[in-house]
Amino acid sequence: MVKCVAIILSGCGVYDGTEIHEASAVLVHLSRAGAQVKMFAPNVDQMHVVNHCEGTPTVEKRNVLEESARIARGDVYDLAKLEVTAFDALVIPGGFGVAKNLSDWAVKGKEFTVQPQVEKLIKGFHAAGKPLAMCCISPVLAAKALPGCEITVGQDKECERWPYAKTATSMKELGCKHVNKKVGEVHIDVKNKLVTSSAFMCNAPIHEVFDGVGVMVTELLKLA
Amino acid sequence: MVKCVAIILSGCGVYDGTEIHEASAVLVHLSRAGAQVKMFAPNVDQMHVVNHCEGTPTVEKRNVLEESARIARGDVYDLAKLEVTAFDALVIPGGFGVAKNLSDWAVKGKEFTVQPQVEKLIKGFHAAGKPLAMCCISPVLAAKALPGCEITVGQDKECERWPYAKTATSMKELGCKHVNKKVGEVHIDVKNKLVTSSAFMCNAPIHEVFDGVGVMVTELLKLA
Repeated sequence: MVKCVAIILSGCGVYDGTEIHEASAVLVHLSRAGAQVKMFAPNVDQMHVVNHCEGTPTVEKRNVLEESARIARGDVYDLAKLEVTAFDALVIPGGFGVAKNLSDWAVKGKEFTVQPQVEKLIKGFHAAGKPLAMCCISPVLAAKALPGCEITVGQDKECERWPYAKTATSMKELGCKHVNKKVGEVHIDVKNKLVTSSAFMCNAPIHEVFDGVGVMVTELLKLA
Repeated sequence: MVKCVAIILSGCGVYDGTEIHEASAVLVHLSRAGAQVKMFAPNVDQMHVVNHCEGTPTVEKRNVLEESARIARGDVYDLAKLEVTAFDALVIPGGFGVAKNLSDWAVKGKEFTVQPQVEKLIKGFHAAGKPLAMCCISPVLAAKALPGCEITVGQDKECERWPYAKTATSMKELGCKHVNKKVGEVHIDVKNKLVTSSAFMCNAPIHEVFDGVGVMVTELLKLA
């Protein structure tokens, strides 16, 4: 049975959209596993546009769907058209777009809300018993939408390899259980059919991130 | 001996910049092989900006270096700073940015010129006996800068799997030898230390493109 997997993108570029290499790794691993893939993104303006050389916001405006199309080579659909019934599983790669365009976590922290379409879809896949995979910062969406779930964003002790370890503390404050995992590992919340992995939360060579995303995709498809 | 490899990017997105998944695959395979990588892009405006949902140009202006930084996660340098002496090999991934921002092939066809910095660098690596790898449409740069070289852009007979097969004919008209190869294969021009592969010139599943780029990287490092 061919598995149909929906992917939600949030732009194109780590600082204001989807992390490009995480998305690419998701696509490569799903393709190798023979899954059918359809990509979606919200048809809204990005929270802002970041000059990725400087790391600072510009005055430009860009649309999340149009920028996501750069990753999707044009083959991406308005998130409003994503029907839970048409898919076996959902993947949300990381990147700051998750915290800026799929939620307002980057701005509001603990008091954040998930973009309504995205929250409805996470809850919809969950309610239908269909598995979810999220990596890097994306598990924050699950932490909010699925109270009490178990996730990993990597390690909770800061060091050169784990520069964003404080994120694990933030996740615990949201009421979920955080489980320390290496970049090549995933945490599987069996009850919630939720597979999470740290990806670029770890300052690791890119092939280790690629392989970690591969484990996430493999475990997701086992649950589907 | 750790190999140092320079990568030239041309923006971010298949229709006006570097093909994202080819660049990502290059980075993953180089990382796995233990190579040190530094990315570069010309600090100039893109020829134009394409809405990747519609496939049509917009009125926006974007800078090639700044957009390339989305692929490089900020870690990219002005092409003017690329010194042949500091590297063992050069990789140029594909995407229309190659034909729009690294040359004017998309506009002028056969009578095109390669962007002067890029042409100087290709000739510089070649003259120093350092290997070059190019995939998808990038071999057009070698065809012009290294007269009489041997390349592949895939197959020269058009079909569903090879929608851009006419490109092979265009390459032959530039005076180089075109060798038909599958997406998972490369052509190695031993005399010129030039490794080329079709990548997304083939309408193949993304993992086949990923693997073909992997063969290209492996053969490049053997020659370095």
